[in-house]
Amino acid sequence: MKLKPIGVIRSPYRTREEAPHQGKGISRIELKDEFSEGLRDIESFSHLHVFYWLDRSEGFSLSVRTPWDPEPKGLFATRTPNRPNPIGYSVVRLVERRGNVLTVEGLDAIDGTPVIDIKPYIPKIDSERAGKANSGWLEGKLGRRWNETRDGF
Amino acid sequence: MKLKPIGVIRSPYRTREEAPHQGKGISRIELKDEFSEGLRDIESFSHLHVFYWLDRSEGFSLSVRTPWDPEPKGLFATRTPNRPNPIGYSVVRLVERRGNVLTVEGLDAIDGTPVIDIKPYIPKIDSERAGKANSGWLEGKLGRRWNETRDGF
Repeated sequence: MKLKPIGVIRSPYRTREEAPHQGKGISRIELKDEFSEGLRDIESFSHLHVFYWLDRSEGFSLSVRTPWDPEPKGLFATRTPNRPNPIGYSVVRLVERRGNVLTVEGLDAIDGTPVIDIKPYIPKIDSERAGKANSGWLEGKLGRRWNETRDGF
Repeated sequence: MKLKPIGVIRSPYRTREEAPHQGKGISRIELKDEFSEGLRDIESFSHLHVFYWLDRSEGFSLSVRTPWDPEPKGLFATRTPNRPNPIGYSVVRLVERRGNVLTVEGLDAIDGTPVIDIKPYIPKIDSERAGKANSGWLEGKLGRRWNETRDGF
Protein backbone atom coordinates (compact mmCIF):
# COMPACT_ATOMS: atom_id res chain seq x y z
CA MET A 1 0.00 0.00 0.00
CA LYS A 2 2.40 2.58 -1.31
CA LEU A 3 1.26 5.89 -2.77
CA LYS A 4 3.00 7.72 -5.58
CA PRO A 5 2.43 11.41 -6.21
CA ILE A 6 0.62 12.03 -9.51
CA GLY A 7 1.16 15.77 -9.25
CA VAL A 8 1.47 18.71 -6.90
CA ILE A 9 -0.74 21.50 -5.53
CA ARG A 10 0.39 25.08 -6.13
CA SER A 11 -1.28 27.43 -3.67
CA PRO A 12 -0.62 30.80 -2.00
CA TYR A 13 -0.27 29.06 1.40
CA ARG A 14 3.26 28.39 2.64
CA THR A 15 2.48 27.10 6.12
CA ARG A 16 -0.33 25.36 7.99
CA GLU A 17 -1.02 28.63 9.76
CA GLU A 18 -1.60 30.42 6.46
CA ALA A 19 -3.85 27.75 4.97
CA PRO A 20 -7.52 28.56 5.64
CA HIS A 21 -9.92 26.00 7.09
CA GLN A 22 -11.70 24.50 4.07
CA GLY A 23 -10.73 27.56 2.09
CA LYS A 24 -12.28 29.19 -0.89
CA GLY A 25 -9.11 30.36 -2.60
CA ILE A 26 -7.82 29.51 -6.06
CA SER A 27 -5.10 26.87 -6.40
CA ARG A 28 -3.50 25.00 -9.25
CA ILE A 29 -3.03 21.27 -9.58
CA GLU A 30 -0.03 20.45 -11.75
CA LEU A 31 -0.23 16.87 -12.92
CA LYS A 32 2.93 15.06 -13.95
CA ASP A 33 3.28 14.99 -17.72
CA GLU A 34 3.09 11.20 -17.77
CA PHE A 35 -0.53 11.37 -16.50
CA SER A 36 -1.68 14.23 -18.71
CA GLU A 37 -3.64 11.99 -21.10
CA GLY A 38 -5.75 10.83 -18.13
CA LEU A 39 -7.25 14.34 -17.85
CA ARG A 40 -9.06 14.07 -21.18
CA ASP A 41 -12.78 14.90 -20.80
CA ILE A 42 -12.29 16.18 -17.24
CA GLU A 43 -13.25 19.71 -18.35
CA SER A 44 -16.79 18.44 -18.91
CA PHE A 45 -17.22 18.32 -15.11
CA SER A 46 -17.85 21.39 -12.97
CA HIS A 47 -16.65 19.81 -9.72
CA LEU A 48 -13.98 17.27 -8.76
CA HIS A 49 -12.93 15.23 -5.76
CA VAL A 50 -9.26 15.88 -5.01
CA PHE A 51 -7.23 13.54 -2.80
CA TYR A 52 -3.84 14.63 -1.50
CA TRP A 53 -1.20 13.66 1.01
CA LEU A 54 -0.82 15.94 4.03
CA ASP A 55 2.94 15.66 4.13
CA ARG A 56 3.30 18.32 6.83
CA SER A 57 1.17 16.21 9.20
CA GLU A 58 3.05 14.92 12.24
CA GLY A 59 1.66 11.92 14.07
CA PHE A 60 -1.83 11.80 15.53
CA SER A 61 -3.82 11.53 18.70
CA LEU A 62 -7.07 9.54 18.92
CA SER A 63 -8.59 12.34 20.99
CA VAL A 64 -8.62 15.73 19.28
CA ARG A 65 -9.21 19.28 20.49
CA THR A 66 -10.99 21.34 17.83
CA PRO A 67 -11.72 25.05 17.44
CA TRP A 68 -15.46 24.32 17.58
CA ASP A 69 -16.13 22.75 20.97
CA PRO A 70 -14.47 22.70 24.38
CA GLU A 71 -14.78 18.89 24.62
CA PRO A 72 -12.20 16.76 22.80
CA LYS A 73 -13.63 14.53 20.07
CA GLY A 74 -12.64 11.18 18.62
CA LEU A 75 -10.17 11.57 15.74
CA PHE A 76 -12.50 10.05 13.11
CA ALA A 77 -15.29 12.43 14.16
CA THR A 78 -13.08 15.36 13.12
CA ARG A 79 -11.31 16.58 9.98
CA THR A 80 -7.94 17.05 11.69
CA PRO A 81 -4.98 16.70 9.30
CA ASN A 82 -3.16 14.61 11.93
CA ARG A 83 -4.47 11.13 11.06
CA PRO A 84 -3.11 7.55 10.88
CA ASN A 85 -3.11 8.02 7.08
CA PRO A 86 -2.95 11.78 6.47
CA ILE A 87 -5.18 11.84 3.41
CA GLY A 88 -6.50 15.26 2.50
CA TYR A 89 -9.82 15.43 0.68
CA SER A 90 -11.77 18.30 -0.85
CA VAL A 91 -14.55 18.89 -3.30
CA VAL A 92 -13.39 21.65 -5.64
CA ARG A 93 -14.85 23.64 -8.49
CA LEU A 94 -12.95 23.23 -11.73
CA VAL A 95 -12.25 26.71 -13.07
CA GLU A 96 -10.08 25.78 -16.03
CA ARG A 97 -7.93 23.07 -17.52
CA ARG A 98 -4.86 23.88 -19.58
CA GLY A 99 -2.92 20.82 -20.61
CA ASN A 100 -1.76 19.12 -17.42
CA VAL A 101 -2.70 22.07 -15.16
CA LEU A 102 -6.08 22.37 -13.42
CA THR A 103 -7.13 25.66 -11.85
CA VAL A 104 -9.54 24.92 -9.00
CA GLU A 105 -11.46 26.73 -6.28
CA GLY A 106 -11.84 25.30 -2.81
CA LEU A 107 -8.54 23.70 -1.77
CA ASP A 108 -6.92 24.64 1.54
CA ALA A 109 -3.67 22.74 0.99
CA ILE A 110 -0.16 24.07 1.49
CA ASP A 111 1.94 24.85 -1.58
CA GLY A 112 3.82 21.75 -2.68
CA THR A 113 1.33 19.20 -1.28
CA PRO A 114 1.43 15.94 -3.31
CA VAL A 115 -1.77 15.00 -5.17
CA ILE A 116 -2.64 11.29 -5.12
CA ASP A 117 -5.95 11.05 -6.99
CA ILE A 118 -8.61 13.07 -8.82
CA LYS A 119 -12.14 11.78 -9.47
CA PRO A 120 -15.13 13.44 -11.14
CA TYR A 121 -17.87 14.65 -8.77
CA ILE A 122 -21.13 13.01 -9.85
CA PRO A 123 -24.20 14.41 -8.05
CA LYS A 124 -26.22 11.21 -8.56
CA ILE A 125 -23.80 9.21 -6.42
CA ASP A 126 -22.00 11.87 -4.39
CA SER A 127 -24.70 14.15 -3.08
CA GLU A 128 -28.14 12.61 -3.60
CA ARG A 129 -27.08 9.89 -1.22
CA ALA A 130 -26.17 12.44 1.43
CA GLY A 131 -29.16 14.66 0.81
CA LYS A 132 -30.33 14.45 4.39
CA ALA A 133 -26.95 14.45 6.08
CA ASN A 134 -26.73 16.18 9.45
CA SER A 135 -23.67 17.92 10.90
CA GLY A 136 -23.24 15.69 13.94
CA TRP A 137 -21.62 17.32 16.94
CA LEU A 138 -20.76 20.32 14.72
CA GLU A 139 -24.42 21.30 14.32
CA GLY A 140 -24.72 25.03 14.91
CA LYS A 141 -21.08 25.35 15.95
CA LEU A 142 -19.34 26.17 12.68
CA GLY A 143 -20.06 29.87 12.96
CA ARG A 144 -18.03 30.55 16.08
CA ARG A 145 -14.72 29.24 17.24
CA TRP A 146 -14.12 28.09 20.74
CA ASN A 147 -10.38 28.59 20.47
CA GLU A 148 -7.70 29.02 17.86
CA THR A 149 -6.14 25.59 17.76
CA ARG A 150 -5.28 24.59 14.23
CA ASP A 151 -5.58 20.87 14.75
CA GLY A 152 -9.23 20.32 14.91
CA PHE A 153 -11.38 20.54 11.92
CA MET B 1 3.86 7.93 1.47
CA LYS B 2 2.99 4.58 2.94
CA LEU B 3 -0.53 3.64 3.93
CA LYS B 4 -1.42 1.38 6.82
CA PRO B 5 -4.81 -0.32 7.07
CA ILE B 6 -6.85 1.03 9.98
CA GLY B 7 -9.51 -1.64 9.53
CA VAL B 8 -11.31 -3.82 7.03
CA ILE B 9 -14.62 -3.81 5.12
CA ARG B 10 -16.93 -6.81 5.60
CA SER B 11 -19.40 -7.07 2.73
CA PRO B 12 -21.44 -9.72 0.92
CA TYR B 13 -19.32 -9.23 -2.23
CA ARG B 14 -16.53 -11.77 -2.85
CA THR B 15 -15.42 -10.63 -6.31
CA ARG B 16 -15.37 -7.49 -8.44
CA GLU B 17 -18.12 -9.03 -10.55
CA GLU B 18 -20.39 -9.37 -7.53
CA ALA B 19 -19.79 -5.87 -6.20
CA PRO B 20 -22.47 -3.46 -7.47
CA HIS B 21 -21.58 -0.13 -9.09
CA GLN B 22 -21.86 2.40 -6.26
CA GLY B 23 -24.07 -0.04 -4.41
CA LYS B 24 -26.72 0.48 -1.83
CA GLY B 25 -26.11 -2.63 0.26
CA ILE B 26 -25.20 -2.87 3.92
CA SER B 27 -21.57 -3.45 4.89
CA ARG B 28 -19.58 -3.41 8.09
CA ILE B 29 -16.37 -1.54 8.78
CA GLU B 30 -14.32 -3.28 11.45
CA LEU B 31 -11.75 -0.90 12.85
CA LYS B 32 -8.63 -2.27 14.49
CA ASP B 33 -8.94 -2.21 18.27
CA GLU B 34 -6.04 0.20 18.57
CA PHE B 35 -8.07 2.89 16.74
CA SER B 36 -11.37 2.29 18.53
CA GLU B 37 -11.07 5.37 20.76
CA GLY B 38 -10.91 7.51 17.60
CA LEU B 39 -14.55 6.60 16.81
CA ARG B 40 -15.89 8.48 19.84
CA ASP B 41 -18.66 10.94 18.81
CA ILE B 42 -18.85 9.51 15.29
CA GLU B 43 -22.38 8.26 15.96
CA SER B 44 -23.53 11.90 16.07
CA PHE B 45 -23.08 12.01 12.27
CA SER B 46 -25.59 10.52 9.83
CA HIS B 47 -23.12 10.25 6.93
CA LEU B 48 -19.40 9.55 6.59
CA HIS B 49 -16.69 9.67 3.95
CA VAL B 50 -14.96 6.29 3.74
CA PHE B 51 -11.58 5.88 2.07
CA TYR B 52 -10.28 2.42 1.22
CA TRP B 53 -7.59 0.68 -0.77
CA LEU B 54 -8.73 -1.20 -3.87
CA ASP B 55 -6.31 -4.05 -3.38
CA ARG B 56 -7.81 -6.14 -6.18
CA SER B 57 -6.99 -3.35 -8.67
CA GLU B 58 -4.38 -4.33 -11.28
CA GLY B 59 -2.53 -1.59 -13.08
CA PHE B 60 -4.23 1.17 -15.02
CA SER B 61 -4.68 2.68 -18.45
CA LEU B 62 -4.94 6.45 -19.00
CA SER B 63 -7.74 5.84 -21.50
CA VAL B 64 -10.74 3.98 -20.08
CA ARG B 65 -13.74 2.25 -21.63
CA THR B 66 -16.82 2.67 -19.47
CA PRO B 67 -20.27 1.09 -19.49
CA TRP B 68 -21.83 4.49 -20.15
CA ASP B 69 -20.44 5.69 -23.46
CA PRO B 70 -18.90 4.13 -26.57
CA GLU B 71 -16.01 6.63 -26.55
CA PRO B 72 -13.10 5.96 -24.17
CA LYS B 73 -12.56 8.64 -21.53
CA GLY B 74 -9.51 9.96 -19.69
CA LEU B 75 -8.85 7.97 -16.50
CA PHE B 76 -9.39 10.94 -14.16
CA ALA B 77 -12.75 11.69 -15.81
CA THR B 78 -13.97 8.24 -14.67
CA ARG B 79 -14.41 6.35 -11.41
CA THR B 80 -12.57 3.24 -12.61
CA PRO B 81 -10.93 1.27 -9.77
CA ASN B 82 -7.81 0.85 -11.90
CA ARG B 83 -5.90 4.03 -10.99
CA PRO B 84 -2.29 5.07 -10.31
CA ASN B 85 -3.25 5.11 -6.61
CA PRO B 86 -6.26 2.78 -6.28
CA ILE B 87 -8.08 4.77 -3.61
CA GLY B 88 -11.73 3.86 -3.17
CA TYR B 89 -14.05 6.56 -1.92
CA SER B 90 -17.72 6.54 -0.94
CA VAL B 91 -20.18 8.61 1.02
CA VAL B 92 -22.08 6.22 3.28
CA ARG B 93 -24.97 6.43 5.69
CA LEU B 94 -24.02 5.41 9.21
CA VAL B 95 -26.61 2.89 10.37
CA GLU B 96 -25.06 1.93 13.68
CA ARG B 97 -21.88 1.94 15.70
CA ARG B 98 -21.07 -0.85 18.15
CA GLY B 99 -17.64 -0.51 19.68
CA ASN B 100 -15.13 -0.67 16.85
CA VAL B 101 -17.69 -1.85 14.25
CA LEU B 102 -19.63 0.55 12.01
CA THR B 103 -22.62 -0.69 10.03
CA VAL B 104 -22.98 1.45 6.91
CA GLU B 105 -25.13 1.71 3.79
CA GLY B 106 -23.66 2.59 0.43
CA LEU B 107 -20.31 0.81 0.02
CA ASP B 108 -19.61 -1.30 -3.04
CA ALA B 109 -16.30 -2.73 -1.86
CA ILE B 110 -15.25 -6.38 -1.92
CA ASP B 111 -15.14 -8.27 1.38
CA GLY B 112 -11.73 -7.84 2.99
CA THR B 113 -10.92 -4.45 1.44
CA PRO B 114 -8.56 -2.43 3.70
CA VAL B 115 -9.95 0.83 5.12
CA ILE B 116 -7.48 3.73 5.23
CA ASP B 117 -9.49 6.68 6.58
CA ILE B 118 -12.92 7.74 7.81
CA LYS B 119 -14.04 11.39 7.99
CA PRO B 120 -17.35 12.92 9.04
CA TYR B 121 -19.53 14.21 6.21
CA ILE B 122 -20.30 17.88 6.90
CA PRO B 123 -22.90 19.37 4.53
CA LYS B 124 -21.58 22.91 4.99
CA ILE B 125 -18.27 22.01 3.39
CA ASP B 126 -19.04 18.82 1.47
CA SER B 127 -22.23 19.52 -0.42
CA GLU B 128 -23.08 23.22 -0.30
CA ARG B 129 -19.92 23.82 -2.28
CA ALA B 130 -21.02 21.38 -4.95
CA GLY B 131 -24.63 22.50 -4.97
CA LYS B 132 -24.59 23.30 -8.66
CA ALA B 133 -22.37 20.45 -9.80
CA ASN B 134 -23.09 18.99 -13.23
CA SER B 135 -22.49 15.39 -14.31
CA GLY B 136 -19.99 16.13 -17.07
CA TRP B 137 -19.89 13.63 -19.91
CA LEU B 138 -22.13 11.33 -17.82
CA GLU B 139 -25.10 13.72 -18.07
CA GLY B 140 -28.17 11.71 -19.00
CA LYS B 141 -26.17 8.52 -19.47
CA LEU B 142 -26.33 6.90 -16.04
CA GLY B 143 -29.68 5.26 -16.73
CA ARG B 144 -28.56 2.99 -19.55
CA ARG B 145 -25.40 1.04 -20.05
CA TRP B 146 -23.60 0.93 -23.32
CA ASN B 147 -21.87 -2.33 -22.50
CA GLU B 148 -21.08 -4.53 -19.54
CA THR B 149 -17.43 -3.73 -18.93
CA ARG B 150 -16.68 -3.54 -15.22
CA ASP B 151 -13.84 -1.10 -15.50
CA GLY B 152 -15.48 2.10 -16.25
CA PHE B 153 -17.36 4.04 -13.70
